[in-house]
Amino acid sequence: MTTTYTLNDCDLAAVAALTETIVADPAQAATIWKADVTWNGAFRSEARVRQFDPTPSDEPAGLGGTDTAPNPVEQLLGAFGNCLAVGVAANASAREIKIDSLTISLEGDLDLSTFLGLADGHAGFGSVRARIDLQTEADSAAVDDLIRHVVATSPVGHSFSNEVPVSVTRATA
Amino acid sequence: MTTTYTLNDCDLAAVAALTETIVADPAQAATIWKADVTWNGAFRSEARVRQFDPTPSDEPAGLGGTDTAPNPVEQLLGAFGNCLAVGVAANASAREIKIDSLTISLEGDLDLSTFLGLADGHAGFGSVRARIDLQTEADSAAVDDLIRHVVATSPVGHSFSNEVPVSVTRATA
Repeated sequence: MTTTYTLNDCDLAAVAALTETIVADPAQAATIWKADVTWNGAFRSEARVRQFDPTPSDEPAGLGGTDTAPNPVEQLLGAFGNCLAVGVAANASAREIKIDSLTISLEGDLDLSTFLGLADGHAGFGSVRARIDLQTEADSAAVDDLIRHVVATSPVGHSFSNEVPVSVTRATA
Repeated sequence: MTTTYTLNDCDLAAVAALTETIVADPAQAATIWKADVTWNGAFRSEARVRQFDPTPSDEPAGLGGTDTAPNPVEQLLGAFGNCLAVGVAANASAREIKIDSLTISLEGDLDLSTFLGLADGHAGFGSVRARIDLQTEADSAAVDDLIRHVVATSPVGHSFSNEVPVSVTRATA
């Protein structure tokens, strides 16, 4: 099998190099990711990651915001779609499937009662749904298998579907 | 007690109106949130939410990307920090605590083995940590209690810490 490194513009050589590094030294698989958030008044804030421009956040007027940016749970859905897109691009390329176009629609339902302090319990998404529209010449069974693999290996999807321990501490002077 | 609607620039009247609506008709607490993602070649994609400019996504070079934007798991951490910021702003205002400044540092650890197809199992964050730096004249016990309440009612935090059912389907022509 010839590996087509440039299929879908994907740099599979970099992924292959990382994979070899981790096979040789499994401790290299342990990564840490970071973000820093600054509150800007009202329900506006922004998240800064590495060298990139900050990503703004707000709430719709109905939730007391000034509606200048997607809210945090919309950002969460966007991150899931972006994660699925990377997963499809990487794994399609590894399988020599050419992507003609790829769009993903996401939705999540959320009961506001806990967030508003009207009930105890789960404040997060009740469920999250994604619909992947992958246009390709590849046969349908190959696409089904690709999507199954992407879902089984999605860092964002698994961060929802599993219990991830969350700890929040207060900075002390 | 006088409610100061303009404390921290927060529009608590809107939140109070929504809360009253939901108390009168609990079905109104059920909300649906959406995002749409488009793949742009390589590991680049963008998430579109309502009327806002799309948010770009990419991967660092070490993961095969072109490093033009935060990656999906960094976006997830940013969303969590933005969620905590809204929660602190809303609940501090309801408690008449004036915020002088608020920043939140987030990190999450992630084992890349599953994402890279080297192992089965959990591909998501192993754990997520947030450190809230809230500068305020309020007394320390009040701040501790505020943060405890914010964590107990965080939609993004709870989407990590609980098992959220995720379903991914394929669009059919």
